[in-house]
Amino acid sequence: MARSDEPSKANLADRFRATRGLTLDLARPLSDADATLQPHPDASPAKWHLAHTTWFFETFILRDHVPGYRLHDEKWPFLFNSYYEGEGERQARACRGMISRPSLAEIAGYRVAVEETLLAALDSLSDEVKALVELGIQHEQQHQELFLTDILWTLSENPLDPAYLDGPPIAAGDAPALGWTTFAGGKVAIGTDAGEPFSYDCERPRHDTLLAPYALADRLVTQGEWAAFMLDGGYSTPSLWLSDGWAWVREKGIEAPKYWRRDEDNAWTRFTLAGRRPIEPSRPVTHVSYYEADAYARWAGARLPTEAEWEAAYADADPDAGTQLDTAAAVMPTGGTSPFGDCWQWTQSAYLPYPGFTPEEGTVGEYNGKFMCGQFVLKGASCATPRGHSRVTYRNFFYPQQRWQFTGVRLARNA
Amino acid sequence: MARSDEPSKANLADRFRATRGLTLDLARPLSDADATLQPHPDASPAKWHLAHTTWFFETFILRDHVPGYRLHDEKWPFLFNSYYEGEGERQARACRGMISRPSLAEIAGYRVAVEETLLAALDSLSDEVKALVELGIQHEQQHQELFLTDILWTLSENPLDPAYLDGPPIAAGDAPALGWTTFAGGKVAIGTDAGEPFSYDCERPRHDTLLAPYALADRLVTQGEWAAFMLDGGYSTPSLWLSDGWAWVREKGIEAPKYWRRDEDNAWTRFTLAGRRPIEPSRPVTHVSYYEADAYARWAGARLPTEAEWEAAYADADPDAGTQLDTAAAVMPTGGTSPFGDCWQWTQSAYLPYPGFTPEEGTVGEYNGKFMCGQFVLKGASCATPRGHSRVTYRNFFYPQQRWQFTGVRLARNA
Amino acid sequence: MARSDEPSKANLADRFRATRGLTLDLARPLSDADATLQPHPDASPAKWHLAHTTWFFETFILRDHVPGYRLHDEKWPFLFNSYYEGEGERQARACRGMISRPSLAEIAGYRVAVEETLLAALDSLSDEVKALVELGIQHEQQHQELFLTDILWTLSENPLDPAYLDGPPIAAGDAPALGWTTFAGGKVAIGTDAGEPFSYDCERPRHDTLLAPYALADRLVTQGEWAAFMLDGGYSTPSLWLSDGWAWVREKGIEAPKYWRRDEDNAWTRFTLAGRRPIEPSRPVTHVSYYEADAYARWAGARLPTEAEWEAAYADADPDAGTQLDTAAAVMPTGGTSPFGDCWQWTQSAYLPYPGFTPEEGTVGEYNGKFMCGQFVLKGASCATPRGHSRVTYRNFFYPQQRWQFTGVRLARNA
Amino acid sequence: MARSDEPSKANLADRFRATRGLTLDLARPLSDADATLQPHPDASPAKWHLAHTTWFFETFILRDHVPGYRLHDEKWPFLFNSYYEGEGERQARACRGMISRPSLAEIAGYRVAVEETLLAALDSLSDEVKALVELGIQHEQQHQELFLTDILWTLSENPLDPAYLDGPPIAAGDAPALGWTTFAGGKVAIGTDAGEPFSYDCERPRHDTLLAPYALADRLVTQGEWAAFMLDGGYSTPSLWLSDGWAWVREKGIEAPKYWRRDEDNAWTRFTLAGRRPIEPSRPVTHVSYYEADAYARWAGARLPTEAEWEAAYADADPDAGTQLDTAAAVMPTGGTSPFGDCWQWTQSAYLPYPGFTPEEGTVGEYNGKFMCGQFVLKGASCATPRGHSRVTYRNFFYPQQRWQFTGVRLARNA
Repeated sequence: MARSDEPSKANLADRFRATRGLTLDLARPLSDADATLQPHPDASPAKWHLAHTTWFFETFILRDHVPGYRLHDEKWPFLFNSYYEGEGERQARACRGMISRPSLAEIAGYRVAVEETLLAALDSLSDEVKALVELGIQHEQQHQELFLTDILWTLSENPLDPAYLDGPPIAAGDAPALGWTTFAGGKVAIGTDAGEPFSYDCERPRHDTLLAPYALADRLVTQGEWAAFMLDGGYSTPSLWLSDGWAWVREKGIEAPKYWRRDEDNAWTRFTLAGRRPIEPSRPVTHVSYYEADAYARWAGARLPTEAEWEAAYADADPDAGTQLDTAAAVMPTGGTSPFGDCWQWTQSAYLPYPGFTPEEGTVGEYNGKFMCGQFVLKGASCATPRGHSRVTYRNFFYPQQRWQFTGVRLARNA
Repeated sequence: MARSDEPSKANLADRFRATRGLTLDLARPLSDADATLQPHPDASPAKWHLAHTTWFFETFILRDHVPGYRLHDEKWPFLFNSYYEGEGERQARACRGMISRPSLAEIAGYRVAVEETLLAALDSLSDEVKALVELGIQHEQQHQELFLTDILWTLSENPLDPAYLDGPPIAAGDAPALGWTTFAGGKVAIGTDAGEPFSYDCERPRHDTLLAPYALADRLVTQGEWAAFMLDGGYSTPSLWLSDGWAWVREKGIEAPKYWRRDEDNAWTRFTLAGRRPIEPSRPVTHVSYYEADAYARWAGARLPTEAEWEAAYADADPDAGTQLDTAAAVMPTGGTSPFGDCWQWTQSAYLPYPGFTPEEGTVGEYNGKFMCGQFVLKGASCATPRGHSRVTYRNFFYPQQRWQFTGVRLARNA
Repeated sequence: MARSDEPSKANLADRFRATRGLTLDLARPLSDADATLQPHPDASPAKWHLAHTTWFFETFILRDHVPGYRLHDEKWPFLFNSYYEGEGERQARACRGMISRPSLAEIAGYRVAVEETLLAALDSLSDEVKALVELGIQHEQQHQELFLTDILWTLSENPLDPAYLDGPPIAAGDAPALGWTTFAGGKVAIGTDAGEPFSYDCERPRHDTLLAPYALADRLVTQGEWAAFMLDGGYSTPSLWLSDGWAWVREKGIEAPKYWRRDEDNAWTRFTLAGRRPIEPSRPVTHVSYYEADAYARWAGARLPTEAEWEAAYADADPDAGTQLDTAAAVMPTGGTSPFGDCWQWTQSAYLPYPGFTPEEGTVGEYNGKFMCGQFVLKGASCATPRGHSRVTYRNFFYPQQRWQFTGVRLARNA
Repeated sequence: MARSDEPSKANLADRFRATRGLTLDLARPLSDADATLQPHPDASPAKWHLAHTTWFFETFILRDHVPGYRLHDEKWPFLFNSYYEGEGERQARACRGMISRPSLAEIAGYRVAVEETLLAALDSLSDEVKALVELGIQHEQQHQELFLTDILWTLSENPLDPAYLDGPPIAAGDAPALGWTTFAGGKVAIGTDAGEPFSYDCERPRHDTLLAPYALADRLVTQGEWAAFMLDGGYSTPSLWLSDGWAWVREKGIEAPKYWRRDEDNAWTRFTLAGRRPIEPSRPVTHVSYYEADAYARWAGARLPTEAEWEAAYADADPDAGTQLDTAAAVMPTGGTSPFGDCWQWTQSAYLPYPGFTPEEGTVGEYNGKFMCGQFVLKGASCATPRGHSRVTYRNFFYPQQRWQFTGVRLARNA
């Protein structure tokens, strides 16, 4: 379906400004110290996200395409390159949390300097370079989501349970009963081709695939349902688990979703961007791994959808609907009827190349293809996804044990 | 294609005897000490394979279906269960190499006792239980292959380079130039359905899938070609590698296939079941990981085939052709035109359930489904696969870093 | 020898104020982010030192001995207890670096509040409790040294080489030739007894021991001498090393003192509190482990002194002389003739109880005795030791692989 | 005291034959597979002990001092050197357990060949080289003890609880009440000088030391007393433990001596060379670490002796008395009044050089000095020490967490 508010080249500058502004807004509740910490090698400091997204524009646009541009600081690219081998040596990922200097204020200054130079040059850039600006905006939107999930992890490591911001009121009651929607399957087309609207190389090309008839649940699995799974011994029944998943549960002592903790009275609570909260039974469960999602589905007599099933089912849904990120807030899932928003939904499809996949040329081509191994595709969008960033062909991907994103479960079954 | 020599129920006893006999033959070149060692948690002692395959028949047939049967030794199931959670606690996989007792001779006695009891009861078993005998034969054939790859690993850890048996003469010269065979693709059926001939649950059900036109190389990548890849900096060029693969290369210091070693003059040699041998340029390279296979294909301007491409291309090939295991020998790849034999061929397809997959009921259902995560499918058969065991629908699977099997590369490309 | 300026009970308040003031001065060059980071589980964040020394006074004096005192924050003891099992659960040592909140400013407020309450109550405290105040002052002085060595480690992890403060001019030239001072040995008394001046329990009781004649070098080993050791293959000659030391060198790839790094021209430089500096050949080498100190001594045809040799030799030296900490500065060794100052000197004596050792009663008794295993004694004082803190009976101790303190080498030999 | 049966040069050949014979006797109960396994990098395969002790004679006597000698196998020194850096590269210690070939029989042949050559040459050897033969005998005696403790560990890893040999009858009843013997201390001489009888370099030179009055328990701590310590929460009371010890208990989940296991009824039993046995309350506890010994002593209101206290107290005791190794048997402690035998006794003294210590010249000088770091001295002898090997000046040493030797506790206190 056509997105409700389609971006166009005309407003590239506006969207650049808006995206950059939202990122800075996300940082306002944080101190320099908050923004410096890294809770785990998988996550990054808030300050690093602010600088890395800026480095992307500085490197691939200003340095490469704006004559006479001089780097803001010659030593910073080493600090703020993420993983682009083509861009040379860089700070080890696991050591991003030791960079107390430059300060948050200095990085804000870096942001302003790069933004002003880029905006001044924007009209003079070729269409090809403008496409890189668009790529940079999409890239920064991805980091907005990571910013929130990473700071959630950071704050969760503090025994004082500090909140990022105040949260919404606590929801009472249960979710409506789970219903199923049936789809006929057959030959369906998924993926997309280059051109408007924006897409990543891994979503291409559009191609046909065959589906057997199937049904998808009409809402996400809730926290209340997850509590029932736990109560029924879900985490201690090996027959529910993949072999790797069971090994993970045993080795790590997993017994609940990430951020679920027992309080003084032994009741389960969860840590959120608004601090510690009770379980809200009607709201979607989040922060579960693929292993947990798969085990839950088996327990529920169902399975996870494939990527193609999900994409074919929701090809006409509005990707800008649902609970997604609009402004800096203690985002969390609320539940609803949109397939987009609340949380990313694990599929049983491995993240692999589509038939005919060709990586982007040059260093930016390192963006997707080299991660096509060992990860699973997630579809939809989460409460931390900037509204306007998602689309039905979007392929998010994580390793099966990762769960610091807002990841949840939509059930599927054969029809 | 119909297998050249189709098994039938009529000769179940014969095939049981033949399979059991070959396993024992494989053990003849080994001392009790050889057969006790475990080189790595991924591999198992030879003695353990002898006992575990026997435990399988004892447990699922004699214990469960032969009235009055008493266990050969009540304490042994703990030692020789592999991973069946439904069968209770067991020796940790990584500790299988500490079991010097029972001895090799005692385990040979266990084999004889179980075989005699089973053969005496065979006629009286129901068809359903006979199907379990068939499953046990297939299971033991898989372990024959592992027996050889595991003892190769074991012997390779000994600085004296001991040989399992004498090997074939060393081949001189180069392989014929690589040619390509083109396939039209379109809608093809892959997988199989329950019934004759034997299949594992993961190969089912037979289903249609769509393929774009493609081409496959008409022979495997050779040791000589691999040496050219190495000489061209293949192991030190990050842009050739998947991100996980590059991390693996760096962390483990990988610079050649497993078992390739430099000799005193710094020339590459390889350790084989016949001891240390020179590189044989015309023969297929083996003992490469998925990461290496994928990097090689990228270097060669090609890609790995998908599982469906491979299966559709060779649906009519004879699965009993090529270099496969016939008798105890220092097996190694020789090269040839059959798509079967020499080595298992990595595909770019993750090992995941087919549409409509249903695991086998009961404990034997733990056999395949629970491993559907993080592994890649390999097709074909290797020089260590017992002839008669393979078929075009067979789905072998390993993790992308594993390479102690006879694993190699057949290139593919879009047509 | 009587200390040049002996403290007395009369000036307890003054010394309390001075010590607390110096700690805060040490923090002034740091941002909140600098003060939050933890570079390694062995070290602690600067902010943590500020809070932990305050927690010590709050817990053992205000809470236990000032009627009606209410904790500044009930949740903070969990964060700022170091290792006192008797004081209950606490933040894991390796996780001290995830506490961005409370902020540096909030901890400064905590310091003021505890100081004011303690000073107001000081006159009313019993002599026994005043002794705890004295213990707290000594404890805080120890943490002043750790503050500096830990922030050095923290800043060293930043590729930008940030300086804590400006340093002294770079010294040119070489040190004077090494001379030896001979001592007769015989029966000597070491250690001390309870009472004035202050001592830790591990320094007691004073007792006799026998020494053979020996000689000590009249100055510390210099950076120039260490460079010669390196040039002579010191780090690659196994016969120079203890077995554990050689394993450490191999496993960690050690090839120079901690903080020594090659610059762009491959020349050795060193990271200091004043940022990156050249090697200064005349100045003492620091940041060497026991393993390195022992290997160097063997290379030099000498040995390390025993604790008793060192203590007997310098019983009459002024412990307040030499390069020690007076005010917040980028401290570093300068060299000189005092046995105190510049760097702690490794002895070949294990840190073990003296004959008749009795641990302090109560929770503060966890201070020393429980560490008497696997560590070596260091004597003297370093450039980061607050002047006034050291004494000849002082027993500093670290594990043989640790080297983030200002640790160096004074040679010894039999006479 | 003069040893009851003093060895002399006259019977060097006899003692060589006897020692070599006992080693081979120790191997008789083992299969080739038993003798090949290595349970942990700290321990070695039985076969390796047989070969390594032979390599010692072959290398340092036959190769270096017998003209025209040719190595039994040129590749074997790589396998059977232990840690002598001066003798070149060698099999990594942790990988000794992968050497199934040469077989036990081949190594027995190696033993015979070296023995015959050495005995034929013995009369012609210089006194200096004869001293190396004596060193080789002492060295082999040490390995006899390790042979037994290592095979105990190996067999303990087998869930079937296999016995090495049958054991003595199970002892009933309790030990006599613990008594104390008081010693005046003062100036005592410990250690020894070079010459007859044999000593290691680390025992030299004889030197004076000062002792305060002290008392030693008149028997070892028993299994019954240890059970009381466990019942009283000994393993869960942090104030009883050294800091490193408590970390070890927590990390490893230690709750009893090594080889103590609960049976099906949850009662404690222990694995021995005679298989699984009940706790025998009257007999000495063994297989405790330094950490445990130290914690037990603190719980008992006592302490561990120092090395000098132990040596001074028992200078006149017969080192050949008590329960020691005479012939191949399932040795275990029985208790008695001799300070020698049953088990090695932990002292609170670190293993460090005596004043004036000079390492042996040449490669054999790597024997002791390079281990003087991080280990504690044990005195006495154990049930696995070959009778005739021990002496009062003997310094055995292990790391504080190691406990696969027959290590136990004799209490001490100030008098």
